[in-house]
Amino acid sequence: MTARLKGNMLIAQSGGPSMVINRSLVGAILEAKAQKSSIGKIYGALHGVQGIMQGKLVDLGRESVRTLRAVAGTPSAALGSVRKKPKPEECVTILQMMKNYDIRFFFYIGGNDSAETASIIDEEARKSNYELCCYHIPKTIDNDLRENDHTPGYGSAAKFVACAMLGLDADNRSLPGVHISVIMGRHAGFLTAASALARQNEGDGPHLLYFPERPFDMEAFINDVESVYKKLGRCMVAVSEGIIDKDGTPIATKFTKEVDAHGNVQLSGTGALGDLLAAQIREKTGISRVRADTFGYLQRSFPGVVSEVDAMEAEKVARIAVRTAVKKYGSASIAIKREKGKKYRVVYESVPLSAVAKETRHMPDEFIAPSANDITPAFLDYIKPLVGKLPVMGRLKGIRV
Amino acid sequence: MTARLKGNMLIAQSGGPSMVINRSLVGAILEAKAQKSSIGKIYGALHGVQGIMQGKLVDLGRESVRTLRAVAGTPSAALGSVRKKPKPEECVTILQMMKNYDIRFFFYIGGNDSAETASIIDEEARKSNYELCCYHIPKTIDNDLRENDHTPGYGSAAKFVACAMLGLDADNRSLPGVHISVIMGRHAGFLTAASALARQNEGDGPHLLYFPERPFDMEAFINDVESVYKKLGRCMVAVSEGIIDKDGTPIATKFTKEVDAHGNVQLSGTGALGDLLAAQIREKTGISRVRADTFGYLQRSFPGVVSEVDAMEAEKVARIAVRTAVKKYGSASIAIKREKGKKYRVVYESVPLSAVAKETRHMPDEFIAPSANDITPAFLDYIKPLVGKLPVMGRLKGIRV
Repeated sequence: MTARLKGNMLIAQSGGPSMVINRSLVGAILEAKAQKSSIGKIYGALHGVQGIMQGKLVDLGRESVRTLRAVAGTPSAALGSVRKKPKPEECVTILQMMKNYDIRFFFYIGGNDSAETASIIDEEARKSNYELCCYHIPKTIDNDLRENDHTPGYGSAAKFVACAMLGLDADNRSLPGVHISVIMGRHAGFLTAASALARQNEGDGPHLLYFPERPFDMEAFINDVESVYKKLGRCMVAVSEGIIDKDGTPIATKFTKEVDAHGNVQLSGTGALGDLLAAQIREKTGISRVRADTFGYLQRSFPGVVSEVDAMEAEKVARIAVRTAVKKYGSASIAIKREKGKKYRVVYESVPLSAVAKETRHMPDEFIAPSANDITPAFLDYIKPLVGKLPVMGRLKGIRV
Repeated sequence: MTARLKGNMLIAQSGGPSMVINRSLVGAILEAKAQKSSIGKIYGALHGVQGIMQGKLVDLGRESVRTLRAVAGTPSAALGSVRKKPKPEECVTILQMMKNYDIRFFFYIGGNDSAETASIIDEEARKSNYELCCYHIPKTIDNDLRENDHTPGYGSAAKFVACAMLGLDADNRSLPGVHISVIMGRHAGFLTAASALARQNEGDGPHLLYFPERPFDMEAFINDVESVYKKLGRCMVAVSEGIIDKDGTPIATKFTKEVDAHGNVQLSGTGALGDLLAAQIREKTGISRVRADTFGYLQRSFPGVVSEVDAMEAEKVARIAVRTAVKKYGSASIAIKREKGKKYRVVYESVPLSAVAKETRHMPDEFIAPSANDITPAFLDYIKPLVGKLPVMGRLKGIRV
């Protein structure tokens, strides 16, 4: 490649929205505006690859900085999102659209499924000898992208989960019983683990945590809860929506059958798992006050609950993707790596699309206690800088008369 | 009554906690400290009447102002709460405890059930000729206390509901489908109605709202959703947990049987109603992406989501209860009344305990649209000052190429 690659840019969002996916979008747009010698028009596709195929493009270069800044602070995917892996014939359409609009820089913000899609489009472009830089910008509240220390969206969702648990734990202290929080995380327990940030004082919940990384045994679960309840008179449980039994079958799939284009089963948007677990506790232990809350889509969309570090990194990683594309061409995903040392610092590295596509990563063993129902101090060291400050809960001294 | 009534004070919290019930507690304590000529010791009972019977009292006069201020900003009931109506023999025990500790001023923070309890204790004291001032301090996120324009706890819970709907609506715009939010409110639709504050722009949800005040008809509901979905390609529904069918049977009670001491069925802490409605939509309309989120206990406990007006009034009403008790003796509930006029202003009035006890109030007809599935502009005028400012959602202009 000798001549400078010049052309238009297309950006799109994919997968589940987050609190900061728009911050990445806006970061990429603002950076692209600064790269006038390489990037001409800045297009956005509505609802990811679906919008590309249907030619539903918007001119993002015509959005005011004021609008962009407001969008950057707004949850959800401002361009619209999609859960779709393009089929071979659809890739032909997508590539044709790229050619029609002279698009040379394509940015896809999303998780592992989105990296896979970017990789498929990249391959298609190579096959037809069309020079197209395909960059994946990481995003997933599940924090399950390979190659990354953590991913944009996780810190803010983790903050929501921690805040929610702080409040629920205090609530449960007021009216004691068993409370089960069902938290997002299809294959990885990172978000559920984040609830442990709510432990500010002795006896604070969550008292038990269950992750998809360890087989879930109903009998052991009931015994765990009974034992905590006997000791404290109450028990706060945090459980991943994606918990699996010893055969690897998600507990929640026994109650739902909906599957998306990537073959994923619906785990969110239903209270079935929480209700099932609550019913088991009620039935087997005789404890009467058993409640379940499924945090659902609030975890990724509640306005105002944002981790500053997360938001900053979401913008940075997108800017770096644009900068890398115009300088180095090619195709890649930008991964966030943490530097060793006491102070929290990250670097952004280009990695092959294939390295983050398809498979997800799990919580490392060192973050899960040997009991399998708790986190380790190493996890707290890991997560604290990602979430930042949390509300401090006041408590009466309660000097008995 | 000629001589000034002097004695100790006892305060307790009852019913579901809220974001500002501790603000009321702390307001009462601080006011009591300023009333030294009447009030000696300031006792708190743990878990309401339960703690009084068991003699589980704490000395609130020994809490530092710093601790009290921290507690005031913390969700949950700091003294612990209870759902319990004392039986006649228990009232004897309660009164004996009052005598033992020379308690002459009793304050009970809670909803209509708590007002009833205060009224029962008041009656018992009269019967035995023990001079005891029983004051009820209003609290309920359901906003269903009679005599009150609104109640402490409602504004903050309404803010949570509005914020949640803002985020969920944006999320649903990203990945369109039908979304059902199940919102607290056993007999009154006030909290569900608050979700309408999320309508900032044309097309914003919630598009359909269902309240316990109007009979819920499954067929009409499905038709409503289908019609909105056809028009917008998506549909946001807000529904009260307490919706009833035409025979007056709560839809949710068909799926649960747990009942508390006041005869209330468990509606919260389960996703059953949302899942039932989602399944019906899926089955009858063929729409594939249908999700339900039950806001659950987050509505009353999520740290940081507080209406300033609500918090201020929660403290004020408690201070006025203490001031009224030491000046006027007797027993009463302090009600919040709104003054007529353009500017939002409230006054605090003493009303008989019996006037707020037992029965709850419903949303007035003028707040519910004739269609029965929406609110009216009059409701928005009513609620806006109670909730205060909400986050403003950014949106791309989206100029099509």
